[in-house]
Amino acid sequence: MKVPHEAKKVFTGEIFDVYQWEQKMFDGSDATFEMIKRPDTIQIIAVDGEKIYLSVEEQPFKGSFIGMLGGRVEKGEEPLAAAKRELLEEAGFASNDWDLFKTYQPFSKMDWMIYLYIARNCKQIAEQRLDPGEKITLISFTFDEFIDYILSENFWGQEFVGDILRMKLEPAKLQSFKQRLFK
Amino acid sequence: MKVPHEAKKVFTGEIFDVYQWEQKMFDGSDATFEMIKRPDTIQIIAVDGEKIYLSVEEQPFKGSFIGMLGGRVEKGEEPLAAAKRELLEEAGFASNDWDLFKTYQPFSKMDWMIYLYIARNCKQIAEQRLDPGEKITLISFTFDEFIDYILSENFWGQEFVGDILRMKLEPAKLQSFKQRLFK
Repeated sequence: MKVPHEAKKVFTGEIFDVYQWEQKMFDGSDATFEMIKRPDTIQIIAVDGEKIYLSVEEQPFKGSFIGMLGGRVEKGEEPLAAAKRELLEEAGFASNDWDLFKTYQPFSKMDWMIYLYIARNCKQIAEQRLDPGEKITLISFTFDEFIDYILSENFWGQEFVGDILRMKLEPAKLQSFKQRLFK
Repeated sequence: MKVPHEAKKVFTGEIFDVYQWEQKMFDGSDATFEMIKRPDTIQIIAVDGEKIYLSVEEQPFKGSFIGMLGGRVEKGEEPLAAAKRELLEEAGFASNDWDLFKTYQPFSKMDWMIYLYIARNCKQIAEQRLDPGEKITLISFTFDEFIDYILSENFWGQEFVGDILRMKLEPAKLQSFKQRLFK
């Protein structure tokens, strides 16, 4: 959800800002309501030919995990521009065929949108250029391997897992997702 | 994830506290890392005989939604005690047969645990006693209706949806979940 207009910022953090406002309750009393705002993020399903790329990432506090390429949208940046920048920084890839697959708002008390993009025809055009807080290697999958991996316990990114599980229950949807990835 | 030991609280909110610490990066530099801590919450699958209860809830800012009974764990309170308190406050129910089904930590940068309980043999022993920020009515389902409802777009609580989708893909698991609810 979006932070409401009347809310005041009461804390500015490195990632998380805190907002509060007075909210009228059902009995006419007032209560202080609170929400978090954080930078939106983008995630990328990077595709080239029949290959789909995920990232094996290590971060200083979080440790190692396998997930999608992606990162934070910077202040004033458009989500698609952020996706292009992250794809280039994290993989050295460029794509000429971007497709916004879906957006997610995972948490009702947090003003945070995740944009999930498909990037087709990914081509290596540069070296990786990582932050001091990232170690990333790419791992490539066929479509079936990709689906299996998303549904394994190891995949990082629960929002997308629900979509894939629904596709598994309706094979026609899984097929049309495959066509969308490789069209 | 848990806030690390060395982190300092830099903001105390109504719900959300903010913690920061200095984190060594891969190149030896330091960066300020940040996490949110919020009260843990409990959710309840309330069962009586063949009936399963969900709550139709209205909140002043969030609006109306259908989800599980439940709420925040108070300071110093055990999760099970919080579940018993919320079941009594929100439904007027008591149960003599509690079963911790699963815990969830939905978000890596937030110290927040959700405890999902099954409460069997729920009996009405009191009137509802709601906060000024709650309007709750109960709605009862058969097992099949409950599963369908969880998987509809309207259900509030995505963590649990993934579990139910996985059960739908493996009917034996769905059957054993049904037995666990009604045993």
